[in-house]
Parts: sequence; C-alpha cells; structure tokens
Amino acid sequence: MKLWGKGRSLDEKVEQFTIGKDREVDLKIAWFDVLGTMAHVQMLASIGLFTSAELGSLMKELKNVLLSIEKGTYRIEEGVEDIHSQVEKDLSERLGEAGEKIHAGRSRNDQVLLDIRLFMRQEIMYLVNRVKSLFDVLIKQSEQHKSSYMPGYSHLQVAMPSSFGLWFGAYAESLTDDLTLLQSAYHLVNRNPLGSAAGYGTSIPVNRKMTSRLLGFEDLNYNSVYAQMSRIKVEKAVSNALASIAATLARFSTDACLFMSQNFDFIRLPDEFTTGSSIMPHKKNPDLFETIRASCNKIQGFPNEITLISGNLPSGYFRDYQLLKERSIGIFEELSSSLEMTLRAVENMIINPNILDDGKYRYLFSVEEVNERVMAGESFRDAYRKVADLIESGDFKPHIEINHIHEGSIGNLCNKEIQERMERLITGFNFPAASAAIERLLSSQ
Amino acid sequence: MKLWGKGRSLDEKVEQFTIGKDREVDLKIAWFDVLGTMAHVQMLASIGLFTSAELGSLMKELKNVLLSIEKGTYRIEEGVEDIHSQVEKDLSERLGEAGEKIHAGRSRNDQVLLDIRLFMRQEIMYLVNRVKSLFDVLIKQSEQHKSSYMPGYSHLQVAMPSSFGLWFGAYAESLTDDLTLLQSAYHLVNRNPLGSAAGYGTSIPVNRKMTSRLLGFEDLNYNSVYAQMSRIKVEKAVSNALASIAATLARFSTDACLFMSQNFDFIRLPDEFTTGSSIMPHKKNPDLFETIRASCNKIQGFPNEITLISGNLPSGYFRDYQLLKERSIGIFEELSSSLEMTLRAVENMIINPNILDDGKYRYLFSVEEVNERVMAGESFRDAYRKVADLIESGDFKPHIEINHIHEGSIGNLCNKEIQERMERLITGFNFPAASAAIERLLSSQ
Amino acid sequence: MKLWGKGRSLDEKVEQFTIGKDREVDLKIAWFDVLGTMAHVQMLASIGLFTSAELGSLMKELKNVLLSIEKGTYRIEEGVEDIHSQVEKDLSERLGEAGEKIHAGRSRNDQVLLDIRLFMRQEIMYLVNRVKSLFDVLIKQSEQHKSSYMPGYSHLQVAMPSSFGLWFGAYAESLTDDLTLLQSAYHLVNRNPLGSAAGYGTSIPVNRKMTSRLLGFEDLNYNSVYAQMSRIKVEKAVSNALASIAATLARFSTDACLFMSQNFDFIRLPDEFTTGSSIMPHKKNPDLFETIRASCNKIQGFPNEITLISGNLPSGYFRDYQLLKERSIGIFEELSSSLEMTLRAVENMIINPNILDDGKYRYLFSVEEVNERVMAGESFRDAYRKVADLIESGDFKPHIEINHIHEGSIGNLCNKEIQERMERLITGFNFPAASAAIERLLSSQ
Amino acid sequence: MKLWGKGRSLDEKVEQFTIGKDREVDLKIAWFDVLGTMAHVQMLASIGLFTSAELGSLMKELKNVLLSIEKGTYRIEEGVEDIHSQVEKDLSERLGEAGEKIHAGRSRNDQVLLDIRLFMRQEIMYLVNRVKSLFDVLIKQSEQHKSSYMPGYSHLQVAMPSSFGLWFGAYAESLTDDLTLLQSAYHLVNRNPLGSAAGYGTSIPVNRKMTSRLLGFEDLNYNSVYAQMSRIKVEKAVSNALASIAATLARFSTDACLFMSQNFDFIRLPDEFTTGSSIMPHKKNPDLFETIRASCNKIQGFPNEITLISGNLPSGYFRDYQLLKERSIGIFEELSSSLEMTLRAVENMIINPNILDDGKYRYLFSVEEVNERVMAGESFRDAYRKVADLIESGDFKPHIEINHIHEGSIGNLCNKEIQERMERLITGFNFPAASAAIERLLSSQ
Repeated sequence: MKLWGKGRSLDEKVEQFTIGKDREVDLKIAWFDVLGTMAHVQMLASIGLFTSAELGSLMKELKNVLLSIEKGTYRIEEGVEDIHSQVEKDLSERLGEAGEKIHAGRSRNDQVLLDIRLFMRQEIMYLVNRVKSLFDVLIKQSEQHKSSYMPGYSHLQVAMPSSFGLWFGAYAESLTDDLTLLQSAYHLVNRNPLGSAAGYGTSIPVNRKMTSRLLGFEDLNYNSVYAQMSRIKVEKAVSNALASIAATLARFSTDACLFMSQNFDFIRLPDEFTTGSSIMPHKKNPDLFETIRASCNKIQGFPNEITLISGNLPSGYFRDYQLLKERSIGIFEELSSSLEMTLRAVENMIINPNILDDGKYRYLFSVEEVNERVMAGESFRDAYRKVADLIESGDFKPHIEINHIHEGSIGNLCNKEIQERMERLITGFNFPAASAAIERLLSSQ
Repeated sequence: MKLWGKGRSLDEKVEQFTIGKDREVDLKIAWFDVLGTMAHVQMLASIGLFTSAELGSLMKELKNVLLSIEKGTYRIEEGVEDIHSQVEKDLSERLGEAGEKIHAGRSRNDQVLLDIRLFMRQEIMYLVNRVKSLFDVLIKQSEQHKSSYMPGYSHLQVAMPSSFGLWFGAYAESLTDDLTLLQSAYHLVNRNPLGSAAGYGTSIPVNRKMTSRLLGFEDLNYNSVYAQMSRIKVEKAVSNALASIAATLARFSTDACLFMSQNFDFIRLPDEFTTGSSIMPHKKNPDLFETIRASCNKIQGFPNEITLISGNLPSGYFRDYQLLKERSIGIFEELSSSLEMTLRAVENMIINPNILDDGKYRYLFSVEEVNERVMAGESFRDAYRKVADLIESGDFKPHIEINHIHEGSIGNLCNKEIQERMERLITGFNFPAASAAIERLLSSQ
Repeated sequence: MKLWGKGRSLDEKVEQFTIGKDREVDLKIAWFDVLGTMAHVQMLASIGLFTSAELGSLMKELKNVLLSIEKGTYRIEEGVEDIHSQVEKDLSERLGEAGEKIHAGRSRNDQVLLDIRLFMRQEIMYLVNRVKSLFDVLIKQSEQHKSSYMPGYSHLQVAMPSSFGLWFGAYAESLTDDLTLLQSAYHLVNRNPLGSAAGYGTSIPVNRKMTSRLLGFEDLNYNSVYAQMSRIKVEKAVSNALASIAATLARFSTDACLFMSQNFDFIRLPDEFTTGSSIMPHKKNPDLFETIRASCNKIQGFPNEITLISGNLPSGYFRDYQLLKERSIGIFEELSSSLEMTLRAVENMIINPNILDDGKYRYLFSVEEVNERVMAGESFRDAYRKVADLIESGDFKPHIEINHIHEGSIGNLCNKEIQERMERLITGFNFPAASAAIERLLSSQ
Repeated sequence: MKLWGKGRSLDEKVEQFTIGKDREVDLKIAWFDVLGTMAHVQMLASIGLFTSAELGSLMKELKNVLLSIEKGTYRIEEGVEDIHSQVEKDLSERLGEAGEKIHAGRSRNDQVLLDIRLFMRQEIMYLVNRVKSLFDVLIKQSEQHKSSYMPGYSHLQVAMPSSFGLWFGAYAESLTDDLTLLQSAYHLVNRNPLGSAAGYGTSIPVNRKMTSRLLGFEDLNYNSVYAQMSRIKVEKAVSNALASIAATLARFSTDACLFMSQNFDFIRLPDEFTTGSSIMPHKKNPDLFETIRASCNKIQGFPNEITLISGNLPSGYFRDYQLLKERSIGIFEELSSSLEMTLRAVENMIINPNILDDGKYRYLFSVEEVNERVMAGESFRDAYRKVADLIESGDFKPHIEINHIHEGSIGNLCNKEIQERMERLITGFNFPAASAAIERLLSSQ
C-alpha cells in the first residue's frame, strides 16, 4: 500500500532498493511520529476539519498505537513504505474517514522532519545526562588525585610537571565546551517545522503556533522553504556537536592507551577490562579504549558524510536525505555507549602514584628553577639561559617541589568554577519545558 | 635569533621547512599579539615583576609596535621564528632588561592561543556585520517580490507553487540559524587561555582573572591542560560555524546557477556580472555564483582537515597545530568575500515575473485542488485520489489562485519574526563589551 | 571461550562493547577464513608440524565447516569472540590435539588480514562483472541513440550540440578509468599477508611462498611490519577505487535527475520505476536515481572515514582497525546494488527524440557558424567576434546541421576503441589464476 | 582583454573575485600551455588551417614565449584572465592573423585540462624520483641496522621482538605499494583530452591522434563529454595516490615522534634537526617530524575537498573546478618537501643499540618460548596456556634469542625482493617515452 498508489505498482527491486532499511529505522521514530500526529489532529480540529467526536476517537486510537510501540509490538507491514503510511493506514482501517483525513495540511516531508526533531530533542536530553555523569566522575577523580603528579608533555617530550588532578579535570572542562556547542544545536532542533508541508506550505489554514505550543517547541521554522532546507542544517549541527563530544572521548582514549603502554605505565585498568592475544600469553590490551576511540572517530566522520550527500543540491526535498536518517538516529546510541564505557573506565582506573621518581623525568623541573630565579629578580630570558647552561653542562639539579597557585594550575584546579559552568549549561537547555508539553499532550483527550 | 637558541644553530632546510609561511601568517595576528602582551605586562607589574617605570616604558614601546603594525611597516626578520620572538627581541633591544622579563609566566603556546582567540573574536564581529547586511538585502528582496510566483520543486520535479518572497526569505532565515551556531562558537572563543603557559601552568603566581578582565574575555579556560587542548576544539567549532554560513551561500548559489539556466530562466544577472566563453559567442556564464559555491565548499572541507591533523594525537601541544593557523585565519577572508559577492548578486538580481504562465507548471496547483475539496468536507485521501484520477485522465484543470495564509507560507512570510530573531541574536554576541575592554587597554599607560 | 582466556573473565559490558557486531560481520568472511586455514595447515604439515593423518582429518573437518557456511547454518557462538576462535574451537572439539595445533605460526592479526584480502579479491571479481554489464548497456544505448541530439551544457548554460550517443558513451568510458584504478588496488589486494603473525613474524619456520601459491596470490607482503601496516593502505586503496566507480554512478544519477525534471524533459523512466507523493497527486519522482546518488556519496565518504580512524596512529596493530571491517565488507554490496539499479534504469530509459526543436536551444549552433567561417578562411577570433555581433543584434540564424567527425565527437564516438580498452582491462585482472588456485586448494586432501 | 569581450566590461569586483589567484597559479602551468599550443598549431597546419610560413612563425614565437617562461620573466597582464588568453594575445600582437587563428578547434576547457595533465605527468616523474631516493635510504638503513633489535608493539603494548631492519624496511615496502597506486593514476594522466573543446567536440576536423602522438600521450580520452568529466576523476586519482605516499610518511613521522620521546628513547636526531622551547631550557623537539606529519595529513584531506567541490554536479564544465587548480598544483611541492625532509631525517637518524636490555621488555619473548615448545611437539594452544601460567606465577624466564627465518622476518628481510619490485615499478611508468616526445616537439620547426 502506497499513499500515492494509483493502481499501478512499483517495480519490486526498485521498491526494495529505495526503501532500504526504512521499515526498520522508522520504528525508532515511530513514537514521535504518533506524537506529532496527535498535535496535528488537535490543530486540524481547531480549524474545523474534525468534529470533536472524530478527534476523540483519533486520540484514542493514536494512544493505542503509542502503547503498541512502547510494548515493542508495532510493525511496519511489508508493502507499506514508512511509519507515516502505516499510521494513516491503521487509523483509516480502524476509524474510516477520520483516518483518511489526517494527512490534510501536511506532507511526509514535514512529518519526517518533525519526527527527527522530536527524536533528537529527547536523545539530546538523555545524552546530556550521560555527559553529566561522566563529568561528575572526572571531577571526582580530579579531586581525589590532585596530589598525584605526572609528567606533562609537549611534542611528546617531557615538558613540565602535571598531575592527575589536572588531567582528569581537563576532560571535565572539555565537556563543558562540548555542551555549549550542543546547546546551540539543541536550539535549532527545538523549532517546529510542521506545517511547511512539502516545503511550500499549504492552502489549508493550519495553525503552526498551536502545534508548536502543543509539542513544546521554543520557536518555529517560519519560512516553509527554509523549514525543508533546515533538515540538513540541523542534522549537521547536531552531528557536529556530537562529534565535539566524541573528540573529547577520543583524545582521552588516546591518552589512556599511551599511558597504559609499558613505556609510560601511568595508569592501569583492572584485568577484567583488558583483553588478551591469541598468540602472546602476556598481553593485556586496552581494546576498550581503542574501541571508544575508533567509534568516536567514526562519529567525527559523519558531518562530512552529510555534506557529501547534501552538497551542491538545490533547495527543495530530495530522497537523498532519507539515507542520512539511519545514521543520524544511530550515532546517538553509538556516542551514548562510548560515554558509558568511558565512565566505567574512569571509575575503575588505577593510578601509578610514583611516576616522577624515574630519572628520565628530571628536566620536568627546569622551568621551576627558571621561575624561582625570576621571582628572585633575574630577568626571564637571562634565567632561562643560565638554566640551559646548567643542563648542557650536566650541572642541573632539580628542586622537586611544585608550587603552582594560579587559576587552573596544579595547585588550584578551579574544579568548582567548572562545575558551576556545567550547572548553568544544564539549566540553559530547559529540558523540563519540553517534557511538560509532551506530558500535557499525552494526557489530553 | 631563537628564543631557545643555545649557541647551536638549526639546520637551514629544517628551519625553512618547519617555519613554513609563519613569518607571513603571523603578521595577521601581530596586532593581537601585542595587545596580549600589554595585558600580560600589566598583570606581571601587579604581582611585582615590573616597576611602574618599566611598565610605562613597555606600554609605550608596545604602542609603537602597534602603530608600526597598523601602518603596515612591521616585519618579522629573517632568522626570527615568529611574531612572539620578534616582539620580545624588539623590546629587549630597545629597553634592555624590561624586555627580557616579559616572557615570565607564559609560553609561546598560550600566546599563540591567545592571539588566535583575539583575532577570531574580532573577525567574528566583522563577519556578523556582513551576514547582517546580506540578511537585510534578502529580506528586502523577499518583501519586494512577495507576489512574484515561481514553481516549488521537490526531487527537482515541479511540485507546488512558491514565490520569490519565500525563496529569498528562506535564505534570510537560514542565516539566523547559522548565527545561532556561530554564537556558541563565539562563546568558546571568548575565553582566556593566557596563563596556561605550555599547557601545565606556571610557578609564577600569575593573575589570570586580571588578564581576562583587561582583554575583555567573558570567562577563562580554567584548567591549563584543557586550555591547550581547546586550541583544536575552538578552531573546529569556529570553522564548523563558518561552514554553516558557507553551506547557506553554497546552496543559494546552486539555486541561482540552476535558475539562470535557459531551462529555468527564473532570474538573470546584469551582463557585467556574467562572463563569456573563449569559443561560444553567445555565453553569459554565472561564474560568480560558481566561484562562491566552490569557495564555500572549500570552507566546508576545513573542519574535516582539522580533524585529520589533530585526530588520534594525545593531549599536549604538537607542532602539527601550527599548520592549521594559516587556514584558520584565511577562511574569514574567504567567507567574507563570498558574503560580499552574494550580497552584490542578490541586490542586482533580475526576476522573471511571468514564470508560471508556462504550461509545464500546470500541475503545481493539484494540491490546491485537493485542499479545496478538503475544506469543503471531503477526506484528504479521498480528494487526493480523485484529483489523481483527473490528472491521469487528462481532465485536470488548475485553478490558478494562491491562497496560503499560515505562518511561513507565501501569503504570510513572517519576515518580521525572522528579523526580530536576528536582532536578538546580534544583541546576544555582546560585541560592545569586548570592544570597550580593548579600548580601555589601548588607552592605559 | 577466549583463545587467550586464562581463567579470568572479561567484564560483560566491555566484552559486548568491544566485540560489537563482529560475530555477525565475521560470517561474511568465514568461508575465506577456512580457506586460509586450509592453506596454513598444509604448510604446517610441510614443515613437520602435522602428520599426514592429522592433515587429512583437518582438511576433512575444514571442508565440513565450509559446507556448513555455504548452507548458511554456521554460527559464531555466544561467548566466542570471532570466526578465528570459532573454527579453532570446532576443530579442537572434533579432532583434539590436531585442532589445538593449528594456530602455530600465525596470529589473528594476519588471519583477519588474509580473510579480508580473499574476500575482497572475490568481491572485486564480482564487481568487475557488474561494471562490465553496465558498461555493455551504456555502449548499446550510446550506439542506439547516436543520432538523438541534446543540448550540451557548460556552467548549466546551453553551450553546444551534444547527443545521447555522447552522453551514454561518456559514462562507459568513465567506467574504464575506474577499472584502471581498481586494477591497481586489486594488485595490492592480491598479496599474501599470512605469516606476518602479529606484525613481527614468528620463530616457527613458516613457508610463506607456499601459502601464497596455495591461495593463488600474485605476490606477498614481504616485510612483516609492513604486512600489518598494509591493512589500512589496502582497505583505503580499495575504497578509493570503489569510490571512483561510485562517483561515476553518482554523476550519472545527477544528470538523470536533472534531465527528468519538467524543465529539461530529456528522458523518462517507466512509471513503475518512479514513486509518488503523499500529497501531490501528479508527482513521478526519480527516487531511484536519488537513492543511487546518495548511496554512492556515502561510499565516497568512506575513504575519509578510514583516514580519520587510522590517522596519526603509529605502526602496529590497533583494535581500532576492527571497526573498519563492517563497512569495508558492506560497501561491496552497496556499490553492487547501485550498479545493478543503474543498469536497470539505463536499460529502461526513454529518450525524448525532439529536444532540439525548442527555441531556447538556438544558440547551441553558434560555434558551428564560427567554425564554418574558419574553414572558409576567416581567423577564429575574427569569426567569433562577427557571430557575437550577429547574436547581439538579433540577426543570428542557426544552421542546424551537425558535422563533427573527429575522434570522440558526435559523429565518431569511438565506442569500439573504448570497448577494446575495457577488454584489455578485464584481461589484466587475471581472475582465472586466482580462481584456479582456490579450486585446487578445495580439491586437495 | 577578454577573449570573449564584446565591448562590455565585467564588474571589477566580480572579475577580481572570480579570477582569484589564477594569474599567479597559471604561471606554474604556462610552460605546458605553450607546449600544448605547439602541438595544436602543428595539427591545425596539417588540416590546412595554417600555411607552413604561418606555422613556422608561430613555432618561433611560441619558443620565445617558452624562453621567457623559463627565464621567469613571463607575466600574465592585469586585465588578462589567464595563461591561455595571454598567449593568444601575445601571438596576435606579434603575428597578427596567425595568432588570431590558433584557438580554432579547441576551448579553454580542454586547454586547461591538457595543461594540468602535462604538468602532472612531469611532476609525477619528479616525485617518483624522490620516492626512489627515500626508498634507497630506507633500504640502506634497514640493511645496516638489521641486527639492532627493538620491541614490537600491538595496541601500544609490548608484543614481540622487532628490529630496525624490519622497521625501516616496512616503510620501504610501503612506498612500493604507493607507487603501484600512483602508476594507475599516471596512466589516467597520460591520456590526451585535447580536441574535446568545451566538452562536446568541434566541427573543425581536428586530428586528435596526431596531437596525442606529438605530446607523447599513451592514449586519449576518446569521448568528448567524458574528457571534460575526467578532469575531476584524474585530479582525484592523482591526489589519492599522493595521499597514499603522504600516509606512509605521516605514519613514519608518528613512529619517529613516539620513538624520540624520553619514554621510548629508541632514536634521536642530531641537535641541529631539533627545536627548542621559549620557556623550557631542556627541550629538543621533533618539530621536523611533526611538520611532515601535519603537512601529509593536509594532503590526505585534499581528495575529500575535491569531492566536496565536485559532488552532485551534473556533467559539463563548471567554474567551480577552477578552484581546485591551485591546490592540485601545490600538493606536488608540499609532498616533495616532505619526502626530502624525511630522507634527510632518515639519513641522520641515530639508533639506540641497547633498547632490549630494559626489564620492561622481558615479555617480548613469551611467544618464542611458546614456539620452542611447539617445535618440540606440544600443541600450540597447550604451550600457550603453559607459558601464560608461568607468566602469571612470575616464573617466566625469557630466552633472549631471536631465530626468525621466514620471508619478511627479522632474519630474512627480503629487501632484495622489495628492491626488485621497485625497479619493475619504475620501469612500468615508462617516463622516457613521454620525455622523448616532448623533446621532439621542442626541436620541431
């Protein structure tokens, strides 16, 4: 059954090829599709296209569909193209004309746009929670290990003293910047495209502000042509923001893999977090971090894929965009897994407390020596040259004492300020507003 | 002269290769480098590392350097690695010990970070102005041509009636979403990395809140290790936001190239905006739009290049990042040119007023017919099937009358709402705060 | 069961996360894994590590496994990491010690390398066949429609006369260049990595030339460290070559979508190849070509994804590479579908025979006029200027007569030369050599 | 002066924007442009469009232009769009009508295609020479250090014994695979596009086989439409092949940076190859390798940029392609520099001869122990488990003796076989054929 079927049937292979995995993928957005239809029919009723009896029976059947989706029993039938068609089919079969009326004033183009928005809005909420959990564990580890020193590197060369407090805290702060970016993407997500129909609006006098309010959107995509164009812009903005989180995790994993090497031996994971080799009986490999890293690198490749698919296409809908749906939906789960696994790894990480005892790190303290001289009145460049001479001649003796007090240094991590920023950010998403609207919609008749 | 020179000299070819175009590129950030040093020396004076006489003479010489940069006469000498070294060299030569003291408590790593931040902060301000100008022209054209109709396409197939009002307005709204994204990148830019030194802070008790205030930053990158990591995150965030603007321009150009084809003939540019062929005497080519499009596509490739260069590297500074500087700086100019040229093209665009007269667009109005029947009480799906039958049998007669009234439709463009959003966005950048701080710094002694 | 299990067990979530879809994906390479083991055990027997009785029973059991794979009944059990472990487990259970011996002198690292090579070698053979079929249809259409003219465009502006002969033929020739590139990737694929073990060889005196011969490889990856590094190089080379074919199909689809627009109306597909709209009763959309295009654009993004995952990693195996396996395997199927669908579309394409009758194409013939004057003795630039003047003044009258005779022009398509190149290319792959070796291996005891 | 100027002039800003850096960039291909014109005029003379006197004077003037280019004095004048226009202008001014005739039967579209092909053909020849030099040094170092052992890593974990012989040799072999890929790209480059004009051929009866022969091409792009499409395909193929070489260098640099870290201390560079820090007096940084790596990563981003610019465009020339020219030309120089610097670094690298003495590497030899037991008759899996038990209980005692003899192992590097492959590859390019043709052309009258 095609919504557009006019007696003729589509070549079977063409159908299979163009539909691809849509029937499967659409189940991930089915719940949101029904939600959107609930708002749409309420709005249509408000402009006289449904009687209140029709509206009541539609709302009731839509809730039945929601229940079936929640129970995992809902299916898109063979021969039905997508979730939108399936829901219309179900309602038409169960309610007759009332079902056949629901598509007035919209198109599958704005419907799928809406579904993806609602899906992303909720997934971002879940993701922010996961980010916050990881953030909390990083801050906790940072505080706990603030007196465990480690070498700081630049160019992978031993540079200056660092600490596990700084290291864990750095990734916590990184996540705050990631959420700043995610928040602006969230604002784009939180705009209502419904009513833009196939990208050119409709002569049905739809009330787009009403559906916006019913679905809890902050704002709407006004211009119908832009609403359609925004599909790519928003999916790209979201994937860029997710990629920024992914970049944080990937870099952390790279650090971790390096620090777990015998040549560093800064950290360890418990044995049950490492894997072995089929031929080398001694191996304890950090597959966990490598899998996080590679998975996050894949996520970082997605924005480019969006551009490759959408670039140089004129405005207006193209079926091409359908091929982005599977991955746009899937990367939330991928990133979420990586966040969860990173959290478990950070929680269980074992720190080597005596790293700096090793002689190869003695030059770490050369700048401390320069700075002591500076504080005692020598000019910086002069002190630098004198210490350099001591090093060259082999006469440098490090004073192993760390005395950093400024904001963001070993002795003053500013974790509290970073936590306050995180709190402000989470408030800024204003998730409860969206949730409250959805609850109201679900409980309306 | 190397800051780190210790008698030995660097292999000449290695020097040339590793420095690359730095001496040239650094001139673009020289002004900001001096600004940062002005804030840094004031802070060092406040913790007792300069007498007030030293501070006065340093500020005076730094202003001289600024003047020389503004006049375009400042140069990075052969044998000097970068702008940071050149300024220290100049001050040391002119002021002796006071100059040799200025590098206390910082590193070239946080200096270049700071320079790029200050540069980007200013360039974003310029760019937002350019975006606003283009936005205004798009809105103006949208209003002016709101009654000029054109076909709307989906799948490049004639779909439903659209208008030049909708078309121009769509790109105006697109720019508001772009600025939403740019604003979050701007917030990341507007954080002070100074004081993080080589990425591990310093034992000099620097006052990072003071330099933040002096330079007009909203906030600071607290954690020193993160400050260094943020280099990539911020350059990527900015380039993603610029790429979003670029995507808007590229799509507009694609539309324009298509609409200028003889097969569409929707718009024209004045002859002096088109180019000819070396062999075909009749050609008037849209090289302007093609150049904008390709240039914007290049910009869209830059975020991926950043990831390729920085991916899978552990935390800590690497020289690799230096190779991003040239392009991170250059894309502002590239995008700015494309914005300017798009504005000129939009301003001068000539609209074909009678497009819909052509018979090939008659099915544009099929949904209008369906909707009329819906408003008269038929169910949507039923009306759809009836109109489909009329089309199949050749009996469809379009009523060419457009009656769209909802938000964002042909008859109700909502340009005012879009303009209000733009105003709120520009206020949200709060550019005057940054400018005022810089002016205060420049006028301090 | 882990090959490396030593009593301890892996955290369940870590296991699930790091294995990902491996159990599923590995079934695609299972057949080749067994093949590789057949060659490996024959080689081990030749150096005395198996008795001939052991070898006989191993070969017999391996053939049973092959049969089970071919029947689709083979499974990787829950708790077993991968295909390599499963086969060793099966053989050990069925044959005892002989099974426990098979992993001598290799590692899962060179095993998976080998499996992917053998898989790709076969898939390339299938793919070349598909390319050849599409090529044949393009040539056939080119010949059939060589007198059907169409406008040629540059900058999307009407430029000079072209023909469907040229258009179809262009894509046929494009495929020959694609196969040139695929052939060099095939040569890299057709090298034996087996024996490089975990990337550092083995103290077991394996005979790598023997396994190369048994498996029909042209050559071997000599250096063991390089053999491991080649994993990325070869997967990237193959994906680049596949991307080149994909680029050909994507551009063809873009042309087709454009030419199917009402504004061009050059070609049509039968109704059963087009899809409709949920709201516009008149639509016949080219979803088929759009899906091909988007799918081929995704394929073109894969080489970049490989670089993102593998870039900046040092030599030696990393688990990260495992995440490439799924897609490296999957894109063969994706590209193959797009080739098949393009073939069906080309075969069924309906050509509009009277395109040039439309007045908007009259300037197509301006260069013909210039050239006539050139052949009559005027200088080119002079003739160009005169025709330009005629066009400006409205006095240009086209002689609609096409008289192109040079190689590769409308009148001399050179399809025969292009076909000969295709034949040489296919011979150059030398597929029968590989197939013959595999058949010998399968029939050996 | 525009070839297509018809009295009207182009808006100045539009001109500046669309021409961009063309006047500069075109000087890099000027020499080849003249060469192409020499072949073109000889061919035009052969079909009667020039008298032999005209041909003689054209050849003479073209040689004058070549000389001026070689001396570096040739310039593209302000107001002239490109090299093609400049040469026609010069010849027309010096020779009158003979100059005005030269553009018959071609277009700037096929001219620039030709120029880039000839440029690339020569640059590939230079590049292959540089690759060969680096290859030779790698083989030399491999042979020289074949008994210097180092740990082999997988997952960055100490794995099995390796050697500098293996390490250097691996990169030598990597370069052979890179050249295999470059060779197929070279075959695409070595095809003549001239005569395809603006992409649709010409009614002038040009002899494309003659120009192919004169310019030393192996073959021609037959189909005129394809000739134009091949622009992107060939630039992408070349950039992919260059990216493959770049990937080899980048990975080598990553290894080198890691091995120069104090935590590895496997290799060193002489002091004059390392750089210092502005604040840390002890630093000796591997900026050289980092710059090579980042530069090579940029090169690896170029193929994606080509796809972003060209993707989803229909067939036919677009000005967009012009924007690829600068970088398509520039990456040869970038890669060439990286090859040269890598060669200097490899030549001067200092090897630490006693790496394996360190206790942290003791488990390197666990597989040797397993294998000894296997050779003595134990089953592999059994021996593996027994050695694993020894390691767990702390009773493992490594026999530090390396006894690898198979192809590609520490004891049998197969450098000779790799060298032979390299020789065959270089012969396969058949550079002398192209050079001989160019010499003949230059010496013809």
